[in-house]
Amino acid sequence: MYRFIENGTVTSAEGFYAAGIHCGIKRSKKDLALIYSKLPCTGAGTFTLNKVKAAPLMVSQSLLAQSDFVHAVVINSGNANACTGEKGLEDVSTTQILAASFLGISPDHVVVSSTGVIGQYLPMDKIESGIRAIVPSLSSDAGVDAAEAIMTTDTRSKYGAVEVELSAGKVRIGAIAKGSGMIMPNMATMLCFVTTDAAVDKACLQTMLSKAVQQSFNRISVDGDTSTNDMVVLLANGASGVKVDAQSSDALLFLEALTALCKKAAQAIVIDGEGATKLITVRVEGAATEEEANWVGKAIANSPLVKTAMHGEDANWGRIICAAGYSGADLAPEKVSIYFDDEPILQKGFQIALDEARARQILSKSLVEIRVDLGAGDQTATWWTCDLSAEYVRINAAYRT
Amino acid sequence: MYRFIENGTVTSAEGFYAAGIHCGIKRSKKDLALIYSKLPCTGAGTFTLNKVKAAPLMVSQSLLAQSDFVHAVVINSGNANACTGEKGLEDVSTTQILAASFLGISPDHVVVSSTGVIGQYLPMDKIESGIRAIVPSLSSDAGVDAAEAIMTTDTRSKYGAVEVELSAGKVRIGAIAKGSGMIMPNMATMLCFVTTDAAVDKACLQTMLSKAVQQSFNRISVDGDTSTNDMVVLLANGASGVKVDAQSSDALLFLEALTALCKKAAQAIVIDGEGATKLITVRVEGAATEEEANWVGKAIANSPLVKTAMHGEDANWGRIICAAGYSGADLAPEKVSIYFDDEPILQKGFQIALDEARARQILSKSLVEIRVDLGAGDQTATWWTCDLSAEYVRINAAYRT
Repeated sequence: MYRFIENGTVTSAEGFYAAGIHCGIKRSKKDLALIYSKLPCTGAGTFTLNKVKAAPLMVSQSLLAQSDFVHAVVINSGNANACTGEKGLEDVSTTQILAASFLGISPDHVVVSSTGVIGQYLPMDKIESGIRAIVPSLSSDAGVDAAEAIMTTDTRSKYGAVEVELSAGKVRIGAIAKGSGMIMPNMATMLCFVTTDAAVDKACLQTMLSKAVQQSFNRISVDGDTSTNDMVVLLANGASGVKVDAQSSDALLFLEALTALCKKAAQAIVIDGEGATKLITVRVEGAATEEEANWVGKAIANSPLVKTAMHGEDANWGRIICAAGYSGADLAPEKVSIYFDDEPILQKGFQIALDEARARQILSKSLVEIRVDLGAGDQTATWWTCDLSAEYVRINAAYRT
Repeated sequence: MYRFIENGTVTSAEGFYAAGIHCGIKRSKKDLALIYSKLPCTGAGTFTLNKVKAAPLMVSQSLLAQSDFVHAVVINSGNANACTGEKGLEDVSTTQILAASFLGISPDHVVVSSTGVIGQYLPMDKIESGIRAIVPSLSSDAGVDAAEAIMTTDTRSKYGAVEVELSAGKVRIGAIAKGSGMIMPNMATMLCFVTTDAAVDKACLQTMLSKAVQQSFNRISVDGDTSTNDMVVLLANGASGVKVDAQSSDALLFLEALTALCKKAAQAIVIDGEGATKLITVRVEGAATEEEANWVGKAIANSPLVKTAMHGEDANWGRIICAAGYSGADLAPEKVSIYFDDEPILQKGFQIALDEARARQILSKSLVEIRVDLGAGDQTATWWTCDLSAEYVRINAAYRT
């Protein structure tokens, strides 16, 4: 059993401090964030699959794989430190050394992350004065500042926390995230930093994070595997005194809570798409394999034509079945059923069940579920996407009606 | 040696007649086209790979595979006759019978094609009166009418023709096409009907069409393999008296001319994207395999972020290398060079060669080439795409500068 904590953030878990300031990479907005735990943390991460990896990502991925524990995460926005060669790697190292010296820890215990423009060197004078200034402002109240400092094209800061009751007591999981729903899985960097006061060994932490990411950030149309800088990092400092053992029922409860928090963050990213007015859940059922369910969900969630139809509140189910058709799944079109919420739109054998007025009523809401039953098995997958509202899609939105 | 024929169209090849009229599927625009040759034609086709195939596509694909020759193509716009089950197939059959009876040919020699809304039955009364009306209006001057009658979201009609000198004389190849450049390869139906007065046997015709399509319609970001209705059909009636033998040097010349015509049509589709202001050629060089060159070209051509940067005339090469990075190709980022036209932007080892003023000058043109050298081999691929100009991408276009 977990519950969301009101105004929860990356400092909701005991023993975590954060800060977010303006150091000068951007003109006036916050652009430097720090997360810190005095207690050593086990760490886990998931990283972009892009062949072009930013310098901080290469360093942090190897650090999290090798170090037994970490203490801090430094994140800057406005500059991705990607495609910057040797100089980029040196700048990451300098950032680690600076943060470590002001925090009184080892540079190997500092995770670094960046987001912003590719192909420019970090302004290291600003990073240095920024780190000097940010350490004293660390606070258990400044999680929202940190959330603001990692924004780029985001229009809203993203943060949240959950509390979960385990057999030996309560633990908390908090997070900040950035990313905004683009029209397609592309390179809008997605970052999420998660903290917990549970005590979790490193292998178990990594397993749980990978599972949670699979069901959340990897199921939205801002796809986590495509930018040079995408990363999700989870730190566990054990400050609650509650231990989570692998394979235990507590681990399942923890995973459930972690997944819920990651889903919330993923949905916040989706709904932050420019001009997005609806959060659309794409639920695929009746697939022969989970992989095929996932393909179909992805194709529908990523279809600009489905997304424009949703914005136009147009029950254009043809676009939905067409996206399923090119998803790669082995589809029998005549077996497919489509529902909006629980309202049948298309039933097996191309029986059109559409009640236009009722469909429009459902599609006028800000939360809409598209449910597609492939009639081929019992596997499922859920994706989230947003509508596409911008003027440029006017022609497509208006095409059917 | 081939040359484009001024105002050439599907009737430029000898012995081909066409017509385009309004039959009532759409409110007022032309919506029914007919192409006809009195001489029997060998036929070839390439068809969508979508698992959801429209009724006319299923019928025409099997007809072209089985019939030794065909005489006519009937195309309607405004209704895709897709996801229409048995009734949809019957309607195709009725359309064939109607056209055949008015033309005095066999129904098996009538190819049918549709484009428009999915999931609605064809208004067969309108199709019947339309076919009755269109046959008498067949003319060797009405290729442009036919081109107009197959438009849906297209803003411009698309047609062209080439003449090619073979060893035994001149032959002509003409075409009409429809499709408009969407933001991503999706389901905007792409149709192209090509005619030639060369005499080409069926197997050779199919081989040449498949090769030409591979280098043209399959290299634009309106991808031919994704709609329920996509098809390219090539008819050869031999009216020129000039025969093209497989494996001959004439076949190579014919293929070159056919490919040039298909590329022209593909480019016309790209540039018809809503708000598109630039035709962008993405040329990938130095790939280890042609497949990898193709992946990289596709990823760059399909990237909304690259396309918005092109519209903003912003030399944001980071988005280009990032797209290459997630293309699936086995990429060494430090070996990549990027050019705009012949101007170096990025050179091996992340050496930034960008001259902002010069780059902006190049990007301000309406024809731009992005050239990417992967530094990994000698394979190449060329894709075409358009810029993304609409207001909704304002944030991304303005982000870097």
